[in-house]
Formats: sequence, C-alpha cells, structure tokens
Amino acid sequence: MSLSTLDRHRLPDNATLRDGWWQAYRNVRRHSLNLAAPLSPEDQCIQSMADASPTKWHLAHTSWFFEALILVPLCPGYRVFDDHYHYLFNSYYEALGPRHPRPQRGLLTRPAHAEILAYRQHVDDAMARHLDACPAANWPQTASLLELGLHHEQQHQELILTDILHAFACNPLLPAYDTHFGPELALTIQPAPALSWLDHPGGLVQIGHGGDGFAFDNETPRHPVWLQPFQIANRLVTCGEFLAFINDDGYQRPTLWLSDGWAQVQAEGWQAPTYWLSPDDPRAAAAEWMQFGLTGVRPLQLNAPVRNLSFHEACAYAEWAGARLPTEFEWEAACHLSGFQQATGVAWQWTRSGYDPYPGFRPLAGAAGEYNGKFMVGQMVLRGGSLATPAGHARPTYRNFFPPPARWQFTGLRLAR
Amino acid sequence: MSLSTLDRHRLPDNATLRDGWWQAYRNVRRHSLNLAAPLSPEDQCIQSMADASPTKWHLAHTSWFFEALILVPLCPGYRVFDDHYHYLFNSYYEALGPRHPRPQRGLLTRPAHAEILAYRQHVDDAMARHLDACPAANWPQTASLLELGLHHEQQHQELILTDILHAFACNPLLPAYDTHFGPELALTIQPAPALSWLDHPGGLVQIGHGGDGFAFDNETPRHPVWLQPFQIANRLVTCGEFLAFINDDGYQRPTLWLSDGWAQVQAEGWQAPTYWLSPDDPRAAAAEWMQFGLTGVRPLQLNAPVRNLSFHEACAYAEWAGARLPTEFEWEAACHLSGFQQATGVAWQWTRSGYDPYPGFRPLAGAAGEYNGKFMVGQMVLRGGSLATPAGHARPTYRNFFPPPARWQFTGLRLAR
Amino acid sequence: MSLSTLDRHRLPDNATLRDGWWQAYRNVRRHSLNLAAPLSPEDQCIQSMADASPTKWHLAHTSWFFEALILVPLCPGYRVFDDHYHYLFNSYYEALGPRHPRPQRGLLTRPAHAEILAYRQHVDDAMARHLDACPAANWPQTASLLELGLHHEQQHQELILTDILHAFACNPLLPAYDTHFGPELALTIQPAPALSWLDHPGGLVQIGHGGDGFAFDNETPRHPVWLQPFQIANRLVTCGEFLAFINDDGYQRPTLWLSDGWAQVQAEGWQAPTYWLSPDDPRAAAAEWMQFGLTGVRPLQLNAPVRNLSFHEACAYAEWAGARLPTEFEWEAACHLSGFQQATGVAWQWTRSGYDPYPGFRPLAGAAGEYNGKFMVGQMVLRGGSLATPAGHARPTYRNFFPPPARWQFTGLRLAR
Amino acid sequence: MSLSTLDRHRLPDNATLRDGWWQAYRNVRRHSLNLAAPLSPEDQCIQSMADASPTKWHLAHTSWFFEALILVPLCPGYRVFDDHYHYLFNSYYEALGPRHPRPQRGLLTRPAHAEILAYRQHVDDAMARHLDACPAANWPQTASLLELGLHHEQQHQELILTDILHAFACNPLLPAYDTHFGPELALTIQPAPALSWLDHPGGLVQIGHGGDGFAFDNETPRHPVWLQPFQIANRLVTCGEFLAFINDDGYQRPTLWLSDGWAQVQAEGWQAPTYWLSPDDPRAAAAEWMQFGLTGVRPLQLNAPVRNLSFHEACAYAEWAGARLPTEFEWEAACHLSGFQQATGVAWQWTRSGYDPYPGFRPLAGAAGEYNGKFMVGQMVLRGGSLATPAGHARPTYRNFFPPPARWQFTGLRLAR
Repeated sequence: MSLSTLDRHRLPDNATLRDGWWQAYRNVRRHSLNLAAPLSPEDQCIQSMADASPTKWHLAHTSWFFEALILVPLCPGYRVFDDHYHYLFNSYYEALGPRHPRPQRGLLTRPAHAEILAYRQHVDDAMARHLDACPAANWPQTASLLELGLHHEQQHQELILTDILHAFACNPLLPAYDTHFGPELALTIQPAPALSWLDHPGGLVQIGHGGDGFAFDNETPRHPVWLQPFQIANRLVTCGEFLAFINDDGYQRPTLWLSDGWAQVQAEGWQAPTYWLSPDDPRAAAAEWMQFGLTGVRPLQLNAPVRNLSFHEACAYAEWAGARLPTEFEWEAACHLSGFQQATGVAWQWTRSGYDPYPGFRPLAGAAGEYNGKFMVGQMVLRGGSLATPAGHARPTYRNFFPPPARWQFTGLRLAR
Repeated sequence: MSLSTLDRHRLPDNATLRDGWWQAYRNVRRHSLNLAAPLSPEDQCIQSMADASPTKWHLAHTSWFFEALILVPLCPGYRVFDDHYHYLFNSYYEALGPRHPRPQRGLLTRPAHAEILAYRQHVDDAMARHLDACPAANWPQTASLLELGLHHEQQHQELILTDILHAFACNPLLPAYDTHFGPELALTIQPAPALSWLDHPGGLVQIGHGGDGFAFDNETPRHPVWLQPFQIANRLVTCGEFLAFINDDGYQRPTLWLSDGWAQVQAEGWQAPTYWLSPDDPRAAAAEWMQFGLTGVRPLQLNAPVRNLSFHEACAYAEWAGARLPTEFEWEAACHLSGFQQATGVAWQWTRSGYDPYPGFRPLAGAAGEYNGKFMVGQMVLRGGSLATPAGHARPTYRNFFPPPARWQFTGLRLAR
Repeated sequence: MSLSTLDRHRLPDNATLRDGWWQAYRNVRRHSLNLAAPLSPEDQCIQSMADASPTKWHLAHTSWFFEALILVPLCPGYRVFDDHYHYLFNSYYEALGPRHPRPQRGLLTRPAHAEILAYRQHVDDAMARHLDACPAANWPQTASLLELGLHHEQQHQELILTDILHAFACNPLLPAYDTHFGPELALTIQPAPALSWLDHPGGLVQIGHGGDGFAFDNETPRHPVWLQPFQIANRLVTCGEFLAFINDDGYQRPTLWLSDGWAQVQAEGWQAPTYWLSPDDPRAAAAEWMQFGLTGVRPLQLNAPVRNLSFHEACAYAEWAGARLPTEFEWEAACHLSGFQQATGVAWQWTRSGYDPYPGFRPLAGAAGEYNGKFMVGQMVLRGGSLATPAGHARPTYRNFFPPPARWQFTGLRLAR
Repeated sequence: MSLSTLDRHRLPDNATLRDGWWQAYRNVRRHSLNLAAPLSPEDQCIQSMADASPTKWHLAHTSWFFEALILVPLCPGYRVFDDHYHYLFNSYYEALGPRHPRPQRGLLTRPAHAEILAYRQHVDDAMARHLDACPAANWPQTASLLELGLHHEQQHQELILTDILHAFACNPLLPAYDTHFGPELALTIQPAPALSWLDHPGGLVQIGHGGDGFAFDNETPRHPVWLQPFQIANRLVTCGEFLAFINDDGYQRPTLWLSDGWAQVQAEGWQAPTYWLSPDDPRAAAAEWMQFGLTGVRPLQLNAPVRNLSFHEACAYAEWAGARLPTEFEWEAACHLSGFQQATGVAWQWTRSGYDPYPGFRPLAGAAGEYNGKFMVGQMVLRGGSLATPAGHARPTYRNFFPPPARWQFTGLRLAR
C-alpha cells in the first residue's frame, strides 16, 4: 500500500489500516537509510553552508519529529532516547523551545553516527508499538501527525541529496555521491522533446488542494483565481539552450537581470549554473563543459534540462529568450494540459510568484503550524518536483519555495508567455 | 492647472498645453527646493545608510533625470552642465552606463551645494526653452518623459523627507527638520475614528490602471482578479493599539513573527517602531513614550496611526490582533468603499503581496524601462500614500514597494480578515 | 616665543610666562582654523571611513579637550558651552564617560559649522581668562595639561589634512584641498639626494625622552638599549624606486610579503600606493602615473619620497630591495648621524618595531593616561614627521603609531641593513 | 635516543646516526597517531573555526611536509601518494603553489580517514627507505629538514589537542577528549606554590639560541639585550586569583583594558576565560564555576594556573593586579633563576613583546623560509610551554606567537614588575 493510497483513507481506525500506516512508515524510514548508505560517517557529519545540513542531522531530525510531535505527547509511557536531542535536533520550532544554532550543525561529531542509528531504531521501535497500541482517542491526531511526519521525512530525503551534493562540490576532489544513482543517469539518455507552446485559455480556475489525500497547509484553501490567456512551454529549458545564453554574454549584460540578481552576479562572480565546470576549470580539465552531479563529473548533457539555477538566473534567461516565467497559478492550471512534460522528476520549476499565503490560509494548530506559514516572505514558489524528490511525494498543488539566490537545489525553469 | 489635470490631456500639442506643462514643471521643481529650504548645506550632504541619499543628491539626480532622458536626446543644441554629473547622479540605470557607488553618495561634498543649485537652474532654463521650442516631432516623447520625470521628482520629494529624518535620527541631538511641518502636526490633533470593519463581497474585480492619466508601468495592464469575500478596517492601526502589542510582549514572542522577522528582531534588538523613544531613552528623558519625527521629539500620539514600521512588525501586529494584512488587490478593491478612511496622507500601508509583475506587464522602452520592473523581487507592495507624499501624487492603483525589513519610510498598516 | 621654547621653562608661574603660554595657545588654535579655511562647511562635515574624522569634529574635539581637562576641573566658574558636547566630542576617554560612536561622526550636521566656531571662541575666551586668573594652586596642573592640549591639537592638525585627503580621494572629482599648499609643492621641486648608507657602530645607546621640554608619556622613561652595528639609508625611498618595485611585479609576488600583508593585497586588490593613479585610471586619463595629493592630481614625482604606504608595502619593498626596515631604536640612534636627511617634513617612517611600552612606562595620571598607553598593541611605530606635521611638533624621540595596513597617513620608509 | 639528544649530534652521517634519526622519526610519528586515537573519524574531520584545523588534516599535513620538503626533492624514485594531496595539505607555503582555502579544511570528508592513515604509512615507509638509502650528498639537507619536520609535527601535536578542544567546546554535549588525559589531570592535584617575586639585576644579557641543538630560525641570531632591573613571579597566575579579578568586575571596567581588548570584550561578550562555565551555564548546572578541558567538565581548580586566556585578558589582569607582563627578554633571562617554576608543562605565557625579528634575523632558505618569518607582525610572543606541548619540544629560547585576541591555546600568564 503506497503512501498516497493511504492518504486517501486515513481517517478510519482499524488494524488493517494501522498496519498499512506501519508499512508506509517503514518504507519511508528505510529509504532515508538507503540514501545515506553511500556516505561514510565523515561524509554524514559535515555542513558546507548554513542553509545545508549534515546527513546525520537529517537522519536525527526526522526521527526527532516523530518523537517530539507524536511519541512524547501521544504515546503513554514513551521514554525519550536522550534528553539532549530535543535541543540538538529541533530545526526551527520556536514553540518547542531553544535549539542548537543552525550554522553549527556540522560541528556535532557527537552524538556519533552509530548513536543516531540507534536513535532511529529506538524511535522506530516505539512507533511500531504505538501504531499497534495507541488508544483510539489518540489515533486521529497520531495518524494526522504521522502522515505529516512521513511527508516531512521525504522532504528531508531530497535535502540529504542536495546538501551532500553541495558539500561534495566544495571538495576539490569532486567526489561522486553514487556513480550509479539512477534518477540522474536517466537524464543523460533521454532526448529532449522538441519545444512547443501549449495554450491555456485563462479564465477562472481552481487553485490549491481541495480533495482527499495529504497536502501541506500552504496548499490550502482551494480557491478561484482568474487567469489571462497564456502559453506555456511543453518542457523545461535545456542545458544546450542555457549554454547559448551564456555564449551570448548572458552573465555580462545587466539589463537582462533583475536588480538583485545583477548584484548577486557581480558579488559572487557567477558565470554559469553552480555545478557547471567550464572547459578551463582546474578541477576537471576537459575540452568541453562538464557538470558535477550526484554521479560525479560528466560531460554537460545539452539535451538535459538545466538545473541548479537560482531564480535570478531563470529570470534572466527568460528575459533573454523573449519570454517569462509562469506564475504558480498558471503552472498549476496548465500542468494537466495534454503535452505538458517533465512536470516532475527532473527539476523544480521557478515561478514568477512570491510565496504569499492563499486567501483564508490558516497554519496547522500547535507546533506544526510553524511548518510552512512563517516562511511566507522573501521566497519564490517552485512547482513540480525533481530527480531527488521521492516517488509519490510531489503533486500538482505542491508549493515548494526558496529564496531567489538559492542555487543548490535541483531547480530549473519552464518558459511562459 | 494641476499635474493630475494635465495628465488627462497630455497627448495634444499646442501652446496652451505646453505652457500648462511648464507650469506643472515649475511647481514640482520649486517644491523640491522648498523641501530643502530648512536644511543647511551640511544637512543636505550626508547619507546615513546605503538605502538613503543626501538631499543634495536628490536635488541633483532629479535634474539629471530631465537632462539625461529629455535634454540630451531630444533637445538639439543642449549643452551638458558638467560632464561628470552623468556619472555622479545616475541612480541605477545600467543602460546609461556606470555610476558612483550608492553607499558613497554622502562623500560628495563637491560639487558644492551652490553648484547643484546652479545645475538645477541650468536644467530648468533649458527645459523652459525646450518646452517652448521643441520640434513637434519630439513632442510626444518629450511630454511622456516630462510627465514621468515630474512623478519621479515627486517620489524623490518623499525620499528627501524620509532620508533626512533617518539622518537626523542618527544624531544624538535629534534635531527637528521643521517644527512647523504641517502634515505631521496635523496628525497630532486628529482624533482617531472608531475602528469598524468594511465588508467587500469579493468576486471578479478589475485591478490596475486602465484609464487616462498618468500611471507607472508597474500599475499596468489593468486585469481581472478574483477575490474571496473579506473585511477590511476603516482606518489604520494607531500608536495606542501598537503600544498594547508592545506591552503584551509582542517583540518577545517568536510565534507572532515570520521567521525572517524574528531573526531581524533578535539581530537588531528591535523593541518598538524605529522612531519611538521609550521612557528611559537617554536622548529624551520623559515619563512617557516619545516619538521622533520631522517636527522633532514629541509625546507619542496614541490616536495617531503608527508609522515607520517594517513589514515584519506589521505582520506580527496583525497576527497578535487576530487579523491579517490585506492583499494589494483587496486594498485596491476596497479603497472605494464608503467609510474607507486614511487611504492616503498618513502612512503607506503594507500589504500581504509580494511585488510581482501584473499579467502582461511590459516595462517602458529604453532606459526608463529600468524604472520599476527590475525591482520586482524580494519586496512587498504598499498602497495608499503618506504624510510625505506630495499632493496629487498618489492614486488607488499606485504600487509602492520596499523590502520587508525597511522601517525608515512612513509606513503603517491597516488590518483585514 | 615658540611652543618648544616654552616647553623648557614651563614650571615657574609668573605673568610673563602666562602670557607666553597664551601666545602659544593662540598660535596653535589659529593654525587649526587656517587649515580648515580652504574647506566648505560641507567638506568639514564628512567622514570617509571609521578611522578618519570630519574636520569639524577635529575642531570641536580639540576644544573639548581644553574644556574637559582644564576648564571644567580647574577653572572655577566656567560655564560649559553646551551639555551635549561632552558626549559628542569625547574621542576615546573611557574615564570621561560614554561617547558618540566613532563611525558616526560624519552624521553630525548639527551642531552646525558656525556653532563649532562659536564653541571654539567660547573656549578660547575662557582659556584667556583662565590663563590670566587661574589661582596659583591650579597653575602647575593647568600648565601641564595646556601643554598636552597644544600638542594634542597639533596632532589633530595633521589628521585634518590626512583625513580630508582620504575623503577627497573617495570623490571621483578628486578635488584639491589647496592647490598652493606649500609643504607638498616643495616636494615637487627638490631633487632626491643620492642614496648612501650611514654606519652606526651599535652598542649601548640611550633611547627615549629624558631632558627638559615636552614629550608624550610613551617616549619615557629614557633607558639604555643595546644595538648591533647597522647601516641606515641617508634618505627615504623615492617614488621612482617604488615604481621599479611595482614594475618588477612587487604586488604580485607573495614571497615578498608578510602573511598578513599578502592577505591584504589580495583582499583589497592593492596594485600601488593608495593615492597613485595608474596611466589607465578613468579619473585622470594620462600617459603617465599620476598622484593625488592635497594640491590635487599631479604627475608622479620620481624624485620625491614615496608616501601613503602601509607598513606591509614598506616591508615588501624592503625585502625586494634586499634590505629591511630599521627598528625604532636604530632610527632614534641614527637620526643624529651626519648626513641623515629627511628626518622630518616629508613622511613618517615605518619601523620594524611593534608599539610596546618602554621599560618602566607609566601612563599619565587621570583621563590623560588613556592618551597613549591603551593603544600599545597591534600597531607599529613610525618615526620622524611628515609634510603635514606642524612645525616644531616632532622630535627625535617621538613615537607615532598606526596599524600595519594603514595607508592614509603621510607614511613612507627608510631602509636599513 | 631522544630527539633532543640527536639534535646535538646531527651533522655526521653514519649508520648509527641514521638509525637514531629513524627511531626519533618513528617515535614522533607514532605519538601523533596516539593523540588521534581517542577520536572517531567524524571527530577528526571537523573544523570549528578558520584558525583551527581538523585532526585528520593535521595528520595529513605533517606527512605532506616530509613528502614535499624531503621525499620529492631529495629521494630519487619516490612516487607521490596522490597528486591531489599537494593542493589539499599545503598549509601556507606560497613558494609551493596554491592550496585549499584554510576555512574549508573541515569540508574534506574525502580523502577518508583511512586514506590518510594509508598516506602516513606510505610516507613512513618511504622515509624509512630514504634514511637507509639516501645518498651521502643528500644527507645534510635531509637531516636538517627531517629535524625541522619532526619539530613541525610536534607543533601540530599541540594543535591537535587545542583544536579538538575548541571543536568540542562548540558542542553543547561538551564531550571529553579523554577523561584520563594525564597532563591535565596532573593540574588538579598540584597545590599552587606560594607567590614570590624573583629579582633579576638587569644589565646586558644574551638572548636567543646560539649553541648546539635544534632551534627555529626565529630564535636566532643570539644577541645582546640590555635589561633594566626587574622582578618576576615565581609561578603563573592561578584560577583563584583570576576569579578575584572577575568578582572585582574586571570584565566590566574599561580602564583596565587595552583599547583593542576592551572592544573585543564588548563585541564578543567576554565574561570569563573561554572554557570556564559560570554557575548558571545551562550546559553544566552546578553550584560553582566549572571548567571544560580535554578531560571534560570539572570543577574549577582554584590552585591551578589559569589557561586559555587571550593576551588582552592577561594584560587586564596584570593591570588590575598592579603589575605587568614580562617582556620576552625578561622571561628568557629570568627562567634560569632559582625558584622559577612552571616554566613549561602548564601554559604558554603571554609576554609584553610584539613578535618582531631579532637583529640580523634571516629566514631559512627555500620554502622552509616561510615557516616563521612571514608571521612577524600583529602577534605577541609567548614563552614556556603547555600541558599539550610534547615532551622535549620546548626550550628557554622558544618563541611561540599568537594574535592578541587568541584564546583557544593553552595560554596563561606570569606577572612581572
């Protein structure tokens, strides 16, 4: 029973369903460990910038989420694994007290890697017992938070990959995470579809999550939005297309850029997407452009969608191409159109929409209310899903968000006009 | 003939109309000098932070705008006042070449104050001649850029006031700009209207500028937006109401704040709006809260609208008050409702809308295209107008914008729910 | 009667002597105003970096020094000019209470320039009365602090020039302080003496001030120092010699530099001394190297001593030249040698001596004890005197000091080996 | 045969002597691994600030030193272990080419810990062969660089301990490096000797290394220095004495501090030596002051010498105590006096001497010339040796040096007057 199947039937409480939840829980939790498997304890310990976190921290924090939100308040008799962990592995929940400063997560050699694995096991054992023995009165809240916790862990699964890629990119050896990592290898063999423009007539469309199944609070409430007619590209912009932008001095022409973007280009010396290596890069001498990824350094695939772009680079490219980014509403309305490809599985797609609350938005009650709402300023919405997004995690109403200069996620762009 | 009257009839070209433009030009230009009049050359020279500019720079830059966009390209035989000024007084127009770094505007003791006045006169004289003698072929572009230039200068008139207030607030003497400055004095005698909630039924509304008269490009194109039903306050939040927020530990409770806002509160030690002086402030010993403004230090007026707030403080207050900020669309749709007060004349009103382009937005052609569009990220929209906004400058479709932490403008808030 | 003549007879108290002090006071004070004369109130208001101060601030601070150290404690019935000035114009005397933050001195448009002139006059009038009427019991302390205050004001006279030069160098117009400023013009016509090496036999020498006359506390106590035999250059390094260092890639070769120096070269992009303009500098198109100074932009004088160098640049040059900097003790021992030229009047001379206290050093009593002692770490000693040093201010035992990266003073170098 | 015994006979070349060198090499190299033994690969990977380095990096860099300075240039047929290591493990030798940025050493999870151990073994094997088979012509240079390399590695042995202590101090768990670490435990049981003052008559003393045996270049040449008579304390200042300074508001009184020191106190909120935990520290609730060290958190030992102090704190304490720090020359001259205790084995002792070159100082030839000389500015000299200094490493002429604000070394103070 897949996680998404469970979503649609999550309210009743019976042994079969509880077992279904347990299977889902076990699958998600196992996948995190699988993702960490190619990494040594050393690899799992480091933090290459304040925005990224160590793998070990992700493994611990996702366990703490179940402990702090379910086991401690809802599971009678649960014994906390280690009193310090509440301080160490709380990410940003002010309602749950003070926490270890984010930029210092990489200094936590202790608790050791093995202790974190033991912590995960401790939480998993307790969750198994709780899913079995939880009193019926606690079940609805347990089920609801369990579901949130699994989606939460899936988000961190993506971050495990993007964060380690950033860390490895800081290492002059450019080590590969896993030379056989399938989702990335797949990109190297797919021919890019021919570019075509899909028409949307505009008008009143329903935006946001409204049906059964799980959604984050930021996708609600479902509400009408009026759209002007527009066209949207059937696929993402490719590396080859972006290379033409570079070769046309795209990174040297201020009028293509938003003001903040141009300031960033100059301050950080941007010349290409973050993991591209120019032919004269000393780390990978080659006669052609190369790209660093989870599978290591490989020749740039001109047919593959460009990824690891900031919003600013996406905007400048669109300006150069005589087009624009779609709004998040256009994206959501268009993603069901016939011919709409690469909706997910490759790269999150920057939209031209600031991350504002939907009309009538209310955060979840309690600490979980800090999950999304408090980040609703200074960020841009991304839609779709990436090669690092766990299967079944994304959906058309999903609102991912990052600040405009962020480049270390698997982020690309689709044009509109 | 007022500027706004002119706006509605700006296309034809005849002597009467040209004279009308000249009157408008002269009035606007004279007002800038009037605003500078209470300030010594020393006062007009300093810059208290990178975001603010010296008065003298404002006086020069607004003249340069006419010189660079009208006189040089459209006035045959015009002689530039000083070749260096193009570099010194270009603000941010990449298309017009390199410029003096913004944070160093306060170091320009030369050109001296008197030279800037001579520059203004030189430009004014040339504009008078040009409005008289401009060939008909150049008239439409002249009229259009002249109109833009006047609105541009009006925007800088507001900045002259907000920037000097910031500079004076950095001086421990807290000097008054002008103890008789009317728009601020007026606030001290108005009783606040009782708070009431105005109902708007929602539905499809038209947003943006669509008729005759001047508007900035960012207000266009006019387009439909679908609104859910909402309520909006008839007036702005008062200082007395905001004081209750402070006294209820508003600045100490993280869960009231957006994440970025709370980080700012801690990093900068915010305890109250930026120009408030607590009773124990060493600069103004008093038994009560005081407020520093253009008229100097005065007792906090509990009935007056709170101003000089960041977006973050506005949001936290709204959260505390069990309400929210209106979107910019709600504000524009509601501002015509009967009972809607303080739309302008007191404080710009933060909305819950990121500054995104309207569907179909195209910047102006040429250098003027950098006027608005390139700032459309990382900022929030404000609506209304303030005590420092020149008469006739604001309109219901006007989109002002500042980054979320900005506090030095006359910015306040109106609640919605 | 010159200031230095007075120094030697400062203990007795009689009408003639008091009048002599008054003449000295008046001369020094008048000279400060003379130095400010070429500058507008705007010029006198700005601060181009935290290490520099506005002219107006110098004029006020030197007056405050007399007010705070003499008039308030020693002159019965003195009435303070303005209560705020104690806060505004205290530089760094912790014992005298809190003060305006140094980096914000440039924001003090108020008190206005004219008020500072009135303040000076007020202090001068009170000093005149005090020198006349001061009770005999207060005379010794008055005379001693008066002498300190005059030397203090002379130090600020040098800073007035170096600070305004820095400010003007930040202005793309590169305005001249005074195109007829004699001490700088003099450099352009002097031929450089031929370089020769003066021998010093080493052995036990007496270092520091020990006789009559004024000296700062940091020059005492006089004490023996043992020197190894050494040679010292008869003159300073010239611009032409330094240009050869530049042309030999001196700024590109890390092994010539101290570690901190090389870091600075890279971080700040140093390519030449701070006020040199390379032939391709956009501010002064020329076929040759130019130099900006108090008299404006002029062709680099190859025969003139190089100045406005950091300690790091001085050290790197010496390394390149196969020599070294002298220690401060070598300098003091050698400056009496026959043939030792340019001891003062051109540029302070970096020595290879950290600014440590002399054995037995005790700071002055009271607030004046903060004058020198608390800066005795992280700085290097300079000896000699510069074109900006007031006549009669320097002496062979004088210990000037600045941090190794400082470049805005008139600082050069003399080689030793 | 100890390292220091070898020092005295290092010139001749015969099998016995070569074997002696091999024994010394093996002992030093083994000690590094012993120091790393209590640490996991995770622990050995992290870097808690730019000034500190990961244990793994120390292990690699010390091996690279032998490889780059001996094996590559002097051992025919040597095969480099990995071409990348030259870039990764060069510390600061500009003459040897570019290198990995210091602040990013903690991101090097690869090469893995095991690979570094293999690297050490590879270098050790090659050194064994080279010491056996090195042609006689290469022997003198080999022996000289080998000796330097062993002293170099001993310096890094101390840094391994101070750097991991800093890293662990950043971990809220405050893990112990080794609860049985002898040199630190020893401090907890020694009673402090009674304070007494030792007299030195001053006069001409010989300073610096001049005899047989190894010394760093910065200790040479030996030269005469004239000292005034002085007194020096027989022992270091204790924690109990320093606590009295704290309790007397030592950290709140600006006039006790040098100007830079007071700025540091305020900017960083210093209240006590860096590893002290006040009674209300949340990390170690206790009724008394605690101290964190290599053996973990323990009650502050009032009798033990205070350590992990900055120069600024040492100076402020001395001022408060009515005394001063000795100069490095006084220390060296006095350390042979009868009754002079704690010369080494506890804490390096800040002196009142800037780190300037000795008269006639010449750095070593070649890359080794960057070892000491290029750091001779902005640092203060420390004398003695600490609990982390390997046995036999220190000597009376040894000049250690750190910048005035550094606190993470085992640094204390001894008074003079």
